[in-house]
Amino acid sequence: MTAEAPEPGSTDRTRIRRLSEKAVNDRAALNAILDAGLVANVAVVDSDGQPYVVPVGYARDGDHVLFHGSTGSRLFRALAQGQPTCLSVTLLDGLVLARSAFESSMNYRSVMVLGTCTTLTGDDAERALRVISDHLLPGRWSDIRPPSRKELAATLVLALPLNEASVKVGEGGPSEAEGDETWPAWGGHIPIREVFGEPIPDEYVGDRPLPDYVRGWTR
Amino acid sequence: MTAEAPEPGSTDRTRIRRLSEKAVNDRAALNAILDAGLVANVAVVDSDGQPYVVPVGYARDGDHVLFHGSTGSRLFRALAQGQPTCLSVTLLDGLVLARSAFESSMNYRSVMVLGTCTTLTGDDAERALRVISDHLLPGRWSDIRPPSRKELAATLVLALPLNEASVKVGEGGPSEAEGDETWPAWGGHIPIREVFGEPIPDEYVGDRPLPDYVRGWTR
Repeated sequence: MTAEAPEPGSTDRTRIRRLSEKAVNDRAALNAILDAGLVANVAVVDSDGQPYVVPVGYARDGDHVLFHGSTGSRLFRALAQGQPTCLSVTLLDGLVLARSAFESSMNYRSVMVLGTCTTLTGDDAERALRVISDHLLPGRWSDIRPPSRKELAATLVLALPLNEASVKVGEGGPSEAEGDETWPAWGGHIPIREVFGEPIPDEYVGDRPLPDYVRGWTR
Repeated sequence: MTAEAPEPGSTDRTRIRRLSEKAVNDRAALNAILDAGLVANVAVVDSDGQPYVVPVGYARDGDHVLFHGSTGSRLFRALAQGQPTCLSVTLLDGLVLARSAFESSMNYRSVMVLGTCTTLTGDDAERALRVISDHLLPGRWSDIRPPSRKELAATLVLALPLNEASVKVGEGGPSEAEGDETWPAWGGHIPIREVFGEPIPDEYVGDRPLPDYVRGWTR
């Protein structure tokens, strides 16, 4: 799909202007990228206009992104107060080696969401924490101690709607500038992916085996 | 090192308040994280106070971070005009499985730099593009066509000083809440790392072999 056929959710602020051939206006693609990522970068602007970028674990829940922070964090409190934000997820998929520096690039899947967060409370907050856990650590929730009231009170749970978002995807080999096809250098692309290493038990595990749900995790 | 012994470069805005046991005030650690990463997330705030987070390839050059964008990009032009920014690099190193959701987390190495960019021009810009290429694609520069005047004119090359920065590192296994050590669940951490896949040549490569400098790349 192209930037010329925006789906609901594309606005003038999220329309891809640069490298618009990489724009993907497709809710399924948006969801797939958010569901594949673990860490989002969230922007917060302080009262002086200074932006901050904070990495957070997150999960998609239907047409929202959920994440949480500490009630003691100035930046998370600003988000809870409805400060406009941008949440960005970028999955790096590879290096692209063109025969010029200008056309060399990276392959990636990237999502940018603009909006303001809603603070979830009570049962909604508890449910959201489970949704986040189920995304980051599938199967883990039923194995661990439930959150205490004190822990819940210390946690700000935020929901950002997906109604203003853009998707950008770069894939495959290089696009060469005209004439560069014959430049005497190797060209192509090199995939990058994340992999899990061997799980490392802590000192309290004893002879408890690695749970099956952990064994099934892959990146 | 701890947040209580800030090195030059730590200010009130970059002092780690949350999880301050994870703060690392050490220029060598800052440099090592920047040198290990490929993609940074850069914040730009528009005239309405709306922040945007843009992923960029980058390189460290001494006490600056260098990156580039298009002269046609509104957001990059705002950075070139001295708009305050935040550049963040986060390397995800693993999942941490505590016996509560509250103490479960991720291992990561993260850098946040605050400041304003300088626009590089002429020879400084050309040199910066080479420094960025040498970081992202070591050995590539001498193999490819040099930038044309038209390409240079279309490229904004920015330098952000490293004089206001923070470093946060999470590593190892979980810290359990008191009493959770005996909760009947497996606990520990699962390393995550990036790996390169097999290089994929494009249609112009012919029988040209993969260059040795590419063969040597690892994540």
